[in-house]
Amino acid sequence: MEHLRYPTLILDKKKCIANIERMALKAKAHQVKFRPHFKTHASAEIGNWYRDFGVTGITVSSVRMAGYFAQNGWDDITIAFPVNLREIGEINELAGKIKLNLLVESLDTIEFLMKNLKSAAGIFIEIDTGYPRTGVRADNFDLMEKMLKKVHPSIAGFKGFLTHSGQTYSATSKEEILQLHQQVLYKLNDLRNHFSGIMEDVFISTGDTPSCSVAHNFEGINEIRPGNFVFYDVMQEMIGSCDANQIAVAIACPVVAKYPDRNQMVVYGGSVHLSKEMLVGKTGERIFGKVVKLMDNGWEEPYAGAFVSSLSQEHGIITATVNILNSYSAGDLIGILPVHSCLTAHAMKHYLTTDNEHIAMMD
Amino acid sequence: MEHLRYPTLILDKKKCIANIERMALKAKAHQVKFRPHFKTHASAEIGNWYRDFGVTGITVSSVRMAGYFAQNGWDDITIAFPVNLREIGEINELAGKIKLNLLVESLDTIEFLMKNLKSAAGIFIEIDTGYPRTGVRADNFDLMEKMLKKVHPSIAGFKGFLTHSGQTYSATSKEEILQLHQQVLYKLNDLRNHFSGIMEDVFISTGDTPSCSVAHNFEGINEIRPGNFVFYDVMQEMIGSCDANQIAVAIACPVVAKYPDRNQMVVYGGSVHLSKEMLVGKTGERIFGKVVKLMDNGWEEPYAGAFVSSLSQEHGIITATVNILNSYSAGDLIGILPVHSCLTAHAMKHYLTTDNEHIAMMD
Repeated sequence: MEHLRYPTLILDKKKCIANIERMALKAKAHQVKFRPHFKTHASAEIGNWYRDFGVTGITVSSVRMAGYFAQNGWDDITIAFPVNLREIGEINELAGKIKLNLLVESLDTIEFLMKNLKSAAGIFIEIDTGYPRTGVRADNFDLMEKMLKKVHPSIAGFKGFLTHSGQTYSATSKEEILQLHQQVLYKLNDLRNHFSGIMEDVFISTGDTPSCSVAHNFEGINEIRPGNFVFYDVMQEMIGSCDANQIAVAIACPVVAKYPDRNQMVVYGGSVHLSKEMLVGKTGERIFGKVVKLMDNGWEEPYAGAFVSSLSQEHGIITATVNILNSYSAGDLIGILPVHSCLTAHAMKHYLTTDNEHIAMMD
Repeated sequence: MEHLRYPTLILDKKKCIANIERMALKAKAHQVKFRPHFKTHASAEIGNWYRDFGVTGITVSSVRMAGYFAQNGWDDITIAFPVNLREIGEINELAGKIKLNLLVESLDTIEFLMKNLKSAAGIFIEIDTGYPRTGVRADNFDLMEKMLKKVHPSIAGFKGFLTHSGQTYSATSKEEILQLHQQVLYKLNDLRNHFSGIMEDVFISTGDTPSCSVAHNFEGINEIRPGNFVFYDVMQEMIGSCDANQIAVAIACPVVAKYPDRNQMVVYGGSVHLSKEMLVGKTGERIFGKVVKLMDNGWEEPYAGAFVSSLSQEHGIITATVNILNSYSAGDLIGILPVHSCLTAHAMKHYLTTDNEHIAMMD
């Protein structure tokens, strides 16, 4: 990495593939379909790494991303975002080419699709299992039944129920993740019991990274869709989903200034590189990233005595102990593990692997 | 805008040009050089709009951005970021083509430049006037004098002292901005007095958007470098730098779901569009943007009863009164004024003007 001149997103391919393998094996062991979310890496090349582990269906977060991966050989895609009526043209085009699954969470949207879908698509009803973003509340069977009645099999096939339990992102320990996951399982199994009397096969899709990483009970679940696990990040480490040594991305940043009197150094690497995602530490400090010593083929464990304490557009401020500060000079490279790898990857748009391989993302 | 299908950054060109004109006239009235920062818009086309107001020199935040604007006809550029030693190759190339000014804040960096600069560049010493990011503390005349002695006129010309008073971004009223600005003026005039005995012309450059927007005293200042004022944003409005009707950018977002029972609707438009920049409102609420009704040729004043209360990667959650919720359905477009327009523009990479003109940014 010694040749790098400006902030560069470094990908440890070995860690990344180990993350994919671990999750694929876990899905297999629990007999759930593994339909990974590709929004974190958003890269055709990284997507291909999943194929070795039997992945054939994927999840994306936008119609545009579905188009990108369809062009790159994926023919079974769930868009895990409520149907954007304004993109019905693009949706119809894609549905004519691949197996496309759509998310609906209202009667209006189902009615719109039944009028405007021109090729068969799969329909998932999105369920809110405790993370109030989008979806029908998990106990609102009445609305779900009304929605089901609107799905005409001649136009679209009903595929099942889908949830994203984003509440696990607020957990602060493995135990708390497991508790939240258990609550979600109760709700989903109530739903399964209810609809088992109404339809032949009830298919349930779930899959936040914390639960999928930590849980060992997937009773009543047919499919998992985690995404972030491919890289993990400081947020997942603090939640309890992973260990720091499983984090597969870091930004290499040039040191540009040192201020020993205030225990800080400044790097070229700011919010346009890392994103403004922030965590609050145990003593109330704001954390925009952890800091690592870069090596030829990767990086060491994060420094215990350093963290990114502030970000401007291009500047990152690292607060660190004297010993750490003393080991860096302006012009050196230092590594930062991102708080939220999805946003960092999206901001950087390009990966350099620890083997010096360049990997592109979608535009 | 009725044809828009996905989140789109809308630029009100009239407001934008009015913002440029107002600042250019203010600089003229106060007899300070106007060297606007171009990092907010990062667009060659928008950059050209400044030429009508006599702008010939600009400020940028990276060597890459300097290269982009140099390619687009600007030949007098200050890189307002500490010299990144790793980019000395690019710096030398640029310095051979245009008038390039560099920022230094340590003896080491000056020594490095004296050894490695191959074309004449201008040198500014960066001064910390109360915003501890980068720069020599404003009262550390001793270090400044040592640095000055290292500048060999045969290699580089000393241009002056430069500061960014980012502390004004924490102000919550015009009065507070003015107080902070006054403190900066005291420090800079002390510095001027000190160095007036040592050098012939003391040149002082300052220029955060809040001070430049609000202050009417620029005594002892030779140059201002505001950037954000070109668009302004919700943060600047809350600081007191501008009125809401001067904000020149909004993201048009499709509504995808409504939840009247929790006073919310969900739009396609998330942290990859707006950035995660956030403000805390008067009652402790987290604000990720203000909400406006879009019109054919722009947008109305922000709704008093609505704000963006949460963001995920692609989802924005708007909390709003019943009346506002009742006036939108899935498939409608709604506007969001960004908290921090620099980061939003950087995330979106493209502008559509209210006159339907497409404007590109640097990659």
